[in-house]
Amino acid sequence: MEKIKVGIIGATGYAGEEIVRLLHNHPQAEIVTLASRSYVGQPYSNVYPNHKSLTDMLCAEEDMEALSKEADVIFLALPHGLASEKVTEEVLNNCKIIDLGADFRLKDVNVYEKWYKVEHHGKKLLEEAVYGLCEWNREDIKKCRLLANPGCYTTCSILSLSPLVAEGMIDISSIIIDAKSGVSGAGRSVKLDNHFAEVNESIKAYGVGSHRHTPEIEEQLGYRAGEELTLTFTPHLVPMQRGILAVCYATLKEKYTWEDVNAAYQKYYGNEPFVRLMAQGAYPETRWVKGSNFCDIGWKVDSRTNRIIVIGAIDNLVKGAAGQAVQNMNLMFGLPENTGLDLIPMFP
Amino acid sequence: MEKIKVGIIGATGYAGEEIVRLLHNHPQAEIVTLASRSYVGQPYSNVYPNHKSLTDMLCAEEDMEALSKEADVIFLALPHGLASEKVTEEVLNNCKIIDLGADFRLKDVNVYEKWYKVEHHGKKLLEEAVYGLCEWNREDIKKCRLLANPGCYTTCSILSLSPLVAEGMIDISSIIIDAKSGVSGAGRSVKLDNHFAEVNESIKAYGVGSHRHTPEIEEQLGYRAGEELTLTFTPHLVPMQRGILAVCYATLKEKYTWEDVNAAYQKYYGNEPFVRLMAQGAYPETRWVKGSNFCDIGWKVDSRTNRIIVIGAIDNLVKGAAGQAVQNMNLMFGLPENTGLDLIPMFP
Amino acid sequence: MEKIKVGIIGATGYAGEEIVRLLHNHPQAEIVTLASRSYVGQPYSNVYPNHKSLTDMLCAEEDMEALSKEADVIFLALPHGLASEKVTEEVLNNCKIIDLGADFRLKDVNVYEKWYKVEHHGKKLLEEAVYGLCEWNREDIKKCRLLANPGCYTTCSILSLSPLVAEGMIDISSIIIDAKSGVSGAGRSVKLDNHFAEVNESIKAYGVGSHRHTPEIEEQLGYRAGEELTLTFTPHLVPMQRGILAVCYATLKEKYTWEDVNAAYQKYYGNEPFVRLMAQGAYPETRWVKGSNFCDIGWKVDSRTNRIIVIGAIDNLVKGAAGQAVQNMNLMFGLPENTGLDLIPMFP
Amino acid sequence: MEKIKVGIIGATGYAGEEIVRLLHNHPQAEIVTLASRSYVGQPYSNVYPNHKSLTDMLCAEEDMEALSKEADVIFLALPHGLASEKVTEEVLNNCKIIDLGADFRLKDVNVYEKWYKVEHHGKKLLEEAVYGLCEWNREDIKKCRLLANPGCYTTCSILSLSPLVAEGMIDISSIIIDAKSGVSGAGRSVKLDNHFAEVNESIKAYGVGSHRHTPEIEEQLGYRAGEELTLTFTPHLVPMQRGILAVCYATLKEKYTWEDVNAAYQKYYGNEPFVRLMAQGAYPETRWVKGSNFCDIGWKVDSRTNRIIVIGAIDNLVKGAAGQAVQNMNLMFGLPENTGLDLIPMFP
Repeated sequence: MEKIKVGIIGATGYAGEEIVRLLHNHPQAEIVTLASRSYVGQPYSNVYPNHKSLTDMLCAEEDMEALSKEADVIFLALPHGLASEKVTEEVLNNCKIIDLGADFRLKDVNVYEKWYKVEHHGKKLLEEAVYGLCEWNREDIKKCRLLANPGCYTTCSILSLSPLVAEGMIDISSIIIDAKSGVSGAGRSVKLDNHFAEVNESIKAYGVGSHRHTPEIEEQLGYRAGEELTLTFTPHLVPMQRGILAVCYATLKEKYTWEDVNAAYQKYYGNEPFVRLMAQGAYPETRWVKGSNFCDIGWKVDSRTNRIIVIGAIDNLVKGAAGQAVQNMNLMFGLPENTGLDLIPMFP
Repeated sequence: MEKIKVGIIGATGYAGEEIVRLLHNHPQAEIVTLASRSYVGQPYSNVYPNHKSLTDMLCAEEDMEALSKEADVIFLALPHGLASEKVTEEVLNNCKIIDLGADFRLKDVNVYEKWYKVEHHGKKLLEEAVYGLCEWNREDIKKCRLLANPGCYTTCSILSLSPLVAEGMIDISSIIIDAKSGVSGAGRSVKLDNHFAEVNESIKAYGVGSHRHTPEIEEQLGYRAGEELTLTFTPHLVPMQRGILAVCYATLKEKYTWEDVNAAYQKYYGNEPFVRLMAQGAYPETRWVKGSNFCDIGWKVDSRTNRIIVIGAIDNLVKGAAGQAVQNMNLMFGLPENTGLDLIPMFP
Repeated sequence: MEKIKVGIIGATGYAGEEIVRLLHNHPQAEIVTLASRSYVGQPYSNVYPNHKSLTDMLCAEEDMEALSKEADVIFLALPHGLASEKVTEEVLNNCKIIDLGADFRLKDVNVYEKWYKVEHHGKKLLEEAVYGLCEWNREDIKKCRLLANPGCYTTCSILSLSPLVAEGMIDISSIIIDAKSGVSGAGRSVKLDNHFAEVNESIKAYGVGSHRHTPEIEEQLGYRAGEELTLTFTPHLVPMQRGILAVCYATLKEKYTWEDVNAAYQKYYGNEPFVRLMAQGAYPETRWVKGSNFCDIGWKVDSRTNRIIVIGAIDNLVKGAAGQAVQNMNLMFGLPENTGLDLIPMFP
Repeated sequence: MEKIKVGIIGATGYAGEEIVRLLHNHPQAEIVTLASRSYVGQPYSNVYPNHKSLTDMLCAEEDMEALSKEADVIFLALPHGLASEKVTEEVLNNCKIIDLGADFRLKDVNVYEKWYKVEHHGKKLLEEAVYGLCEWNREDIKKCRLLANPGCYTTCSILSLSPLVAEGMIDISSIIIDAKSGVSGAGRSVKLDNHFAEVNESIKAYGVGSHRHTPEIEEQLGYRAGEELTLTFTPHLVPMQRGILAVCYATLKEKYTWEDVNAAYQKYYGNEPFVRLMAQGAYPETRWVKGSNFCDIGWKVDSRTNRIIVIGAIDNLVKGAAGQAVQNMNLMFGLPENTGLDLIPMFP
């Protein structure tokens, strides 16, 4: 089989760079273009010296149309609002698109415009776009041209809660998600909020009651529930490079045991290559998934309060971005889903 | 006025050392004994070289009875189970006791023994002990001999939620506290869980549904509510030295505005020297209280879910331990409450 | 005595903020103006929320002339090149100036312009300016109007090596200084180099063979030696908030013992309030000076190579900037040198 | 070709675990035994949950003799003093040994016993052991039975300085190495020195003038020089997980340019797969090699002092331990040297 020709637009952000890292060891893909507006003409390995001696490619212009004729698939890692403008029917006739941004994740354009506060330019394509959470949309992903890769917080939150919602085991009006992220989730943008001395040795919540991943989680869990739902989502910034921990609270509808819950998780994830279910009494920690495509999930049934506490952990740049994007590419091109993703978490 | 003679038992733990740091600049107190079982006979400044040239005291035996005859007040910073054995009526006839441990915090000895899994040896004194949360128990503190200094998570959680509970603004069955702590909260004990390479670059929840600060929060908030309550409390370990962030969720009983809630907080904390209420849209971060005795509190009324999210931040070693202990000492000896505690948070 | 009226220009940088923190507890000084070009009109406690409830001052324009009429002393914390322009004879007739920048540290304007690559606008004042390393220039400092506060790396390096140079114990052509700094030393400026994810989990040397603190160290050690000298200085960026560790290497002129060296250090620093000499076999670590004005110094005589390794540690924002500036102010106004500087290092 | 059967003794230390991680993706090797005295009988993935779902092996007894009959090669990751006892002629008749410890690195047993302060039990095998620095001993490595894998500081230091010594470009009596390491280099042992709150937010030198890697560097550079040499080596502990930065100082014998030096480095490393030479003006940082087997090297010719500053960076657990061990295994078994080592540094 000929290798899949890959273009990356936004290749010099953290997610873009992670795709480059992952594809380096992917036996069926080759990168043909690394596009980055800010660094056009510069060696990629100057921008990211970890790639020195591994690639001699230069950063190219972000010319989606030209690239679509050359590549079999384009990964987009752009600020929101740009993808919806650049992805056109013409582009999609030429190649497949995997969008790591938010533009095609929400089906309801009003919800998008309300939370993101920008106009959506690609409404016609919204219907077609497939939400790329492989564990739940595998069959649709295989057939799609335009894939919306889920957000990092959302991947972790949705994977953690979906079995309980799908099985009707929790009161869907009671969901609270308290999530924590490493700083790479904020991207490589240069601002005071990302300054080492401002972030280090502190923890803060942000986007309290207003973070844009909220409607994405609500929409997807709503599909599981078969009805709309509203939840509370609070993200936090933690002084570490990578990792997301989503701690999810919900009221149980009945007096379930740990084993009852386990049966639900086994039903949906028992054969999933990238979901690992913890033993009773063990809980995920971000260190155990760092650098890998795994999502670890554990839970506690708190009989005192009749609540369940479900904890999920992922690497925000892998399962929360680049790794999931490659997993989606594999599905879209008929490859084994874990091709190039046999990554052991790196510890310490 | 003669200076208060202070003894510290458990002076070489992090909380003990912080008391030494704070009392160094306290104009009305002088340390007479630094006791530490593990380092008897060694210069204190060898154990903590930051104190080099500031003290030439040696670590002494932990002899409570002898010390009680010499000191006006003894700070106890011991593992739980020891204080209840060592504090006796005789000791209390000699001097006042400020216990930074858990032994005298819970009024119900059964609750204590259930959560701490040790026998309580000082049941007679439990009744007498005063819970040293100055903002709520000021008058009792002034008169007491035996003070139970609150835990770090609990100080932050109780201060954050008390006005809402006292005013009956939230459904007390809906309380969930998702709290995050720096590593100094785990103490100076040497174990794999505290190893730099195991803690750094990761976040985890621990004690899920079973942490010992849970009943302490429940008891104190119960006093505010006038009835017993049960809540969910999940602590986390964050790779930083100091700081606690408590993010508290509860369902509002009515459609309150931010201003309604502000009125409640102003009522209880408007004149408190160590509580700072955030402006609308601003939230506490642990970096802004580090090294100080402040508790910062902010909140969001989430009208979508009719929940309130209250966020509190303290320095676990100051307002969560040593600073509050000194604040209590000041009250117990008739000094202005902020004596020696005029600490500006150190940033960065 | 009336309090010293203090103005701070550049009050919203890290060094400026640290002066504010220190002066808050200084019994003989009061801040009259906090000037900051970037934040004019904003509450200082919005820029630095750690100061919330402690000051309600607003950030003012940086009007040196007006301020000089109001203040007894102005602290300047500005990028290099600005102070030499703003400090005039007229200003100095009105008040004293303590410049935390580099403009008045080097006596030779050619050396300044070569290393800093800007023109010097205050050549006439260069002669008058006093280099504010209290331990070595105390008497001159007491009498001066214009004080050049030493750099952070330089304070630590010069204090560490001066006794050996002054006593002629080392070959002055053999000096190599390998220094390490926390990130606050890079200032609060927003650039990719300061991004958390770029700095964290890495160490790098920078300014190799070209850092601007090199000629400052050479000039000052040259005064000790009574002749010019050239040395190698390599700074490093360490993923931590504060602290400088200077590890200095030199060849001994004779076979000295640890005790011989100790005699030299005791001679110069035995009575210094802010220099702490380590016992044999102990070496400074930045954690033991954090938040304080101490400089800790230790050394090893390596008989295998006939070299001495001298290690110094300071807090770059205190003894390396704001603390030393306050120490200088105390001297310039006839106060006890340690007024307001009785700071115990904060650990952990 | 049949896969190489690999046993690991000391599999639960950080270096041991890193071998497991690397071999997981090695196409020609399979692990047959994971031995660890402390965890016998426990699932390996309980000790290191990052391996969950990747291996179901249990930790086995450390029985070298039995294992030698089953395995083609044994990796030893043991505290010093143990390997010299356990590796026997009989064991070596059964299988090859790659020792990651120090016991077989120094040819002179007196030097070993002086610096390590233990008796050496395998003197007869010392002569036979090959020092496994692939870039310099490749041919000997291919033929050996007993391989001494270099230390982490030593790998970085020797690779950085060897070309200059071999070409006679520096005064070998002038060498000073100031090296910095992440905390994983201290191993997983539980002691106060490794406690997060003691290590974080600080930097310190340790083993000043006495670190055990000193004679190893001296011996190996001595081979390059053709004569014995003595140097100064100072290691430091940096608050990060991984990485070594070795900053090496030496006096140039002549007025060499950057290009002259480059020619020397190109001569020795121009074709090396795991050495990357920096462009002029660029210097290694540990972040760019993290997780990979690369050694990055850059240098500055400081004409002011006629010194050269050479900077090397490696990941201490990969090129400084497990990666180099696998590289050696590849050579010993006739495989392409980079088999299983095509690791892109993981950033951030």
